[in-house]
Amino acid sequence: MRRPRSPRLSRRVLLGGAAAGSLAPGAALAARAGDAAPDWMQVPGRPFREYGAPAPQEADVGREILQPYEDVSPGAGVAMTPLEDLEGTVTPNGLHFERSHNGVPAIDPLRHELLIHGEVERKLLFTPGDLLRYPMVTRILFIECAGNSFFNSNAFPLAVDEACGMIHGLVSTAEWTGVPLSLLLGDARPRRGARWLIAEGADANAMSRSLPLEKALDDVLVALYQNGERIRPEQGYPMRLVVPGWEGNLNVKWLRRLKVVEEPVYARDETSKYSDLRPDGKALQFTFPMDVKSVITRPSGGQKIAPGFLHVSGLAWSGHGAVRRVEVSTDGGNSWQTAALDGRPPLFAPVRFRMNWTWDGAPATLLSRATDQAGHRQESRAEWSARYAHGHLYHCNAIQSWRIEADGSVTNVYL
Amino acid sequence: MRRPRSPRLSRRVLLGGAAAGSLAPGAALAARAGDAAPDWMQVPGRPFREYGAPAPQEADVGREILQPYEDVSPGAGVAMTPLEDLEGTVTPNGLHFERSHNGVPAIDPLRHELLIHGEVERKLLFTPGDLLRYPMVTRILFIECAGNSFFNSNAFPLAVDEACGMIHGLVSTAEWTGVPLSLLLGDARPRRGARWLIAEGADANAMSRSLPLEKALDDVLVALYQNGERIRPEQGYPMRLVVPGWEGNLNVKWLRRLKVVEEPVYARDETSKYSDLRPDGKALQFTFPMDVKSVITRPSGGQKIAPGFLHVSGLAWSGHGAVRRVEVSTDGGNSWQTAALDGRPPLFAPVRFRMNWTWDGAPATLLSRATDQAGHRQESRAEWSARYAHGHLYHCNAIQSWRIEADGSVTNVYL
Repeated sequence: MRRPRSPRLSRRVLLGGAAAGSLAPGAALAARAGDAAPDWMQVPGRPFREYGAPAPQEADVGREILQPYEDVSPGAGVAMTPLEDLEGTVTPNGLHFERSHNGVPAIDPLRHELLIHGEVERKLLFTPGDLLRYPMVTRILFIECAGNSFFNSNAFPLAVDEACGMIHGLVSTAEWTGVPLSLLLGDARPRRGARWLIAEGADANAMSRSLPLEKALDDVLVALYQNGERIRPEQGYPMRLVVPGWEGNLNVKWLRRLKVVEEPVYARDETSKYSDLRPDGKALQFTFPMDVKSVITRPSGGQKIAPGFLHVSGLAWSGHGAVRRVEVSTDGGNSWQTAALDGRPPLFAPVRFRMNWTWDGAPATLLSRATDQAGHRQESRAEWSARYAHGHLYHCNAIQSWRIEADGSVTNVYL
Repeated sequence: MRRPRSPRLSRRVLLGGAAAGSLAPGAALAARAGDAAPDWMQVPGRPFREYGAPAPQEADVGREILQPYEDVSPGAGVAMTPLEDLEGTVTPNGLHFERSHNGVPAIDPLRHELLIHGEVERKLLFTPGDLLRYPMVTRILFIECAGNSFFNSNAFPLAVDEACGMIHGLVSTAEWTGVPLSLLLGDARPRRGARWLIAEGADANAMSRSLPLEKALDDVLVALYQNGERIRPEQGYPMRLVVPGWEGNLNVKWLRRLKVVEEPVYARDETSKYSDLRPDGKALQFTFPMDVKSVITRPSGGQKIAPGFLHVSGLAWSGHGAVRRVEVSTDGGNSWQTAALDGRPPLFAPVRFRMNWTWDGAPATLLSRATDQAGHRQESRAEWSARYAHGHLYHCNAIQSWRIEADGSVTNVYL
């Protein structure tokens, strides 16, 4: 039998309202709880539901919605995953982040078709029903918007004080099931010289992106299921591309057409957006894999903590494969400790990292930095910013810093 | 570039309404699809939602509800996961199966408390807030009701014709996050001689089960999160036991008290139910691990298939650890082929198995049988039934047989 963990235990008793060390109040509480059953045990509970919903007491756990052009295009913007309220690595379907450029189309799945055309020997057309008879694979993968963490980029010189989800909530994780795109392309037979695909969505924005054929033939899915059930409308119902590890915008939702071509098209949404402007004024056109990133979700911005034993918990992921290591600092980056990882870090999926910490009540600054299997490690915000033009916000994987004040309040700070 | 798969491709063209082999109609369709954008691309889509929901066209994907005592206790019964509609291995929270004995209690999480008492040196009391500061771990695990697959047991001598979920839908899978029970017990310090735990739920049934202390100290969780978000009310909000691989009833929901004792209590729900009656009239009192099982979910009962290329897909799991192998038969068990597995089978979590098959249109009977790391393999329904008294239904892991008629209809048959 292992020995009791004193810090944890005394903290618990403190929460019980007693003096540190004394267990008497705990026992008193225990005696009380041993008495009468609570009122909710005195009456039969509610019966069954065909499709469940979260507890009413959790109703405030929702996606934060930003609509920068609300008057002209309310469907252009984002809905961000409340990372600070979640644990583990899977995002429930109702809270998976949304990035849409002109709203969620009302697609009739019986009329929706996926066309494969262009430089192919066989033009092919698939209904969702066709694809449901194709071989499928299942993978747990993160999808991250290239604009995620914009509040931590150098586009916001004035410090913002927001919750973790508002800063980093354009990343979510699901178990995706779909048809390997390599099978469909194998049936279409791309012609010699074809090197790229143009993927087009069936939304009012006709979202179009260029994708290297090499990646398309490697591990890309035409996904139909998300965490077991058919994909949600805002995630691309009835089908979407899932491009493991690459920027979210390439994971084209409501997938309608795949055109095999020789060169990229430099579509609007890969030139006006998602390119990286350097200090010398030159831009990187295509930045496909999302860089290694980690963020502490508990404690995080807007939360308030009490002194004593704490469990520090966060997420780490990389578009270059698996995370190899996560380090946590409680002193603003002067010293680092290796965090525990929840199991073996998977490919292109987040790993939950954890560290137990006893907070002495003095002001502190919590940071985390991840290193991936390619050897990339997160930089400070200053280091990251120096690599880009002022005002740049895409592909920001800078280290997140959480400041803990003496009163236990946690805020976003820029280091 | 891989060669096109003719069976798949010609099947697709057939669905396109053309003669087998001819691609012209496919091209015609393609041309059509290349024309005007569909109507849902002509108007802005709907804006964002704080919490999402499935597509309206998927509204019939829900849990099948059975309430055997509907008049006196509508909250006693089951809601079954529609396995035939799902893919991958994760069950979305809204569709996780329910087994409740007197409904879902309306628990106030601010007043709910977990008491650890009995043969311990320290009586401890935890609020959900206390546990949220404790160290946590995350694991993907199945939970299966001991009464699952009752329609496939020998309690139903007359063949039933039901969908896969109605027969086997009392098993679901989620990513569970919670506090290792070993930590809480370590703080409570069980006394010498203590060998069992009595877990009690805060529902109107005060569900109570005896659990060996050895398992409790091994891998049992007091779970607070399910697929990332706080546990749903029907799954035990605000906290439940999760007992990897063991029968569902031990995963006590709405966990209220844990009493450390020397002997099991033989509570009502472990004597009147969940025990295994042998032909000689003697019963096995405790059957904890759920036996190895597999079931083909597509094609399955109530579905209708067309001749040609098919993707056969199903789930396999074992309470004894990981699944090692799944075999599929298309001729009623005369011959078996090894199915492909989606990745390395995890411990106490299902693996999706897959097999491509070209159906020639002649009547056929599809079976699957799984073997786990302990060497256990599923038996036929006749073999399984012979080991128990007539009318026995618990812990049924017999092989499921699906009959495909010449018209493509699929039904449950007993072999």
